[in-house]
Amino acid sequence: MKKDEEYMRLAIIEAGKALEIEEVPIGAVVISKGEIIGRGYNLRENTNDPTAHAEIIALKNAAANLNSWRLDECSLYVTIEPCPMCAGAIVQARIKRLVYGAKDPKAGAAGSLYNIVRDKRLNHQVELKAGVLAEECGDLMKGFFRKLRK
Amino acid sequence: MKKDEEYMRLAIIEAGKALEIEEVPIGAVVISKGEIIGRGYNLRENTNDPTAHAEIIALKNAAANLNSWRLDECSLYVTIEPCPMCAGAIVQARIKRLVYGAKDPKAGAAGSLYNIVRDKRLNHQVELKAGVLAEECGDLMKGFFRKLRK
Repeated sequence: MKKDEEYMRLAIIEAGKALEIEEVPIGAVVISKGEIIGRGYNLRENTNDPTAHAEIIALKNAAANLNSWRLDECSLYVTIEPCPMCAGAIVQARIKRLVYGAKDPKAGAAGSLYNIVRDKRLNHQVELKAGVLAEECGDLMKGFFRKLRK
Repeated sequence: MKKDEEYMRLAIIEAGKALEIEEVPIGAVVISKGEIIGRGYNLRENTNDPTAHAEIIALKNAAANLNSWRLDECSLYVTIEPCPMCAGAIVQARIKRLVYGAKDPKAGAAGSLYNIVRDKRLNHQVELKAGVLAEECGDLMKGFFRKLRK
């Protein structure tokens, strides 16, 4: 879907904001009816908040804008596969559809280590699309860690 | 350990605060060197925040107090087994030890559906003790849902 790439580009813009302040470059946006209603980028180091991942910030931002914790008409776009915390938050927020860029084989919880967003034992399942602009999303991470090692 | 029951009573006090404002009665505290440095109770409905579970609030509170996202000398006490989001957040915060009261067979991610806090594939594992004051913690929930159905 062409639209998916468009929205992923908005998530990549968020990731770029993290990169500028030396955070791991992950970005996310929440889309409702074609409009961006939430955005976030990783802020763990700058805020000293262990939960300040891109997805959590974007979900909280969207919920505040809609004045509802239930985001069941929304899609979440994130540059990297969510970790267990974020995959769990996506289920808690009843997100309708999750689209991510690059896989995270070390900690991903939407297909890699777990698939929390598709788990039929939980009270909500999320539509899932992986691999949108995966290379671009992954390259941002690789560049960051390469620079960090130097 | 007698101390575990003492700290769980503090988490139960937090759960009581949720009950008073008609939230699902779950409470949590973070303990460091015998001192309470974070506390939280479920606030999802009152804040319209899908991430406002007791554990997340207590972790954020502790991290703000320590000015660090890394809570690796801390224990978290929570009345009910954490969901995937909260179990993931406990790993993200590098919590040393998790103690919970009653199991959650429907969504628990520290032994029931998953055991995220003990997963050796992730970059941190948490010591785990389940079942402390389980009956008391579970009864709070049962009473709440019984009243809700009326």
